[in-house]
Amino acid sequence: MNPRIAVPLPKAYRLLNHGPTVLVSSAHGGRRNVMAASWSMPLDFDPPKVAVVIDKSTLTRELVEASGEFVLNVPSRRQAAMTLAVGTQSGRETDKFSIVGVGAAAASLVGAPLIDGCLAWLECRVIPEPRNQQAYDLFLAEVVAAWADPAVFSNGRWHFADDQWRSIHYLSGGSFFATGDAFDV
Amino acid sequence: MNPRIAVPLPKAYRLLNHGPTVLVSSAHGGRRNVMAASWSMPLDFDPPKVAVVIDKSTLTRELVEASGEFVLNVPSRRQAAMTLAVGTQSGRETDKFSIVGVGAAAASLVGAPLIDGCLAWLECRVIPEPRNQQAYDLFLAEVVAAWADPAVFSNGRWHFADDQWRSIHYLSGGSFFATGDAFDV
Repeated sequence: MNPRIAVPLPKAYRLLNHGPTVLVSSAHGGRRNVMAASWSMPLDFDPPKVAVVIDKSTLTRELVEASGEFVLNVPSRRQAAMTLAVGTQSGRETDKFSIVGVGAAAASLVGAPLIDGCLAWLECRVIPEPRNQQAYDLFLAEVVAAWADPAVFSNGRWHFADDQWRSIHYLSGGSFFATGDAFDV
Repeated sequence: MNPRIAVPLPKAYRLLNHGPTVLVSSAHGGRRNVMAASWSMPLDFDPPKVAVVIDKSTLTRELVEASGEFVLNVPSRRQAAMTLAVGTQSGRETDKFSIVGVGAAAASLVGAPLIDGCLAWLECRVIPEPRNQQAYDLFLAEVVAAWADPAVFSNGRWHFADDQWRSIHYLSGGSFFATGDAFDV
């Protein structure tokens, strides 16, 4: 597992504010899974909340509904092929952790694992909103702990340098954008 | 107004899938406004839906609730300073269109305007969900028409070339990322 430092909760939204693709990890009753999600966003600052779309067909959905917990992991460009793989295979048919070589470590406050090699991690507890979940596959959650690799995020700021060690933004059909130049206005 | 071509509705999610910062434009009863929003995402493919957070304190909130409509506009890097300006000033105190030099054109199906110089536009009708709106400032909407500048999006694909003519991702404190390198895995 790569290094990580705690991100103060009022700054946790900054891990997602630029709209990166995330991995949703989950666990319940001895089973665990990881899937990719392009559709997530911050929902509030403090306490931090997030929104994420989790399709009814997925094993992740079953584990998140059963446990009431998940982790949003921010993968790096080095992990783009893995991100695509866990976004297109189903955890019902295969153990994605072993198939795609995903390492994981224990989170601090939730049962879902932290995915090794990611840039940041948000431990989340579902805020039950049955209508959103049923009608829109939309899950709202409170961020209860947040972490980042200090090589790329510290003091509330991203500071990417390496071309491969930065976040990614999925388009479709195996195509991504890397997070690009930082600039101030 | 820069050129625009219609984006088929089942492809409209691709305009937001990579998580760009958007401008939310709105109009009602002879008033109009535009604000920046980092917290938006696709919610469904077909019919396309979106989710966006609109704070209770904003004029945009008042206009969106009154009209049931808004447009999500995808600004370019050229518009980053304007995006920051319309994200930090209130439309209650100033006509942001004149102050920050925002041009606008009529949309096709909603009363909210299309912001000139943007890369893409999604005309949206609110799906009333009063609990989400009240408890989370969260608005769900159906995309009823979508447009893109063919210089950067056509046949369902973004194809940025110019450094300034690409989408942006807001962080905080006046800092943005540009959308970076495209790559396939």
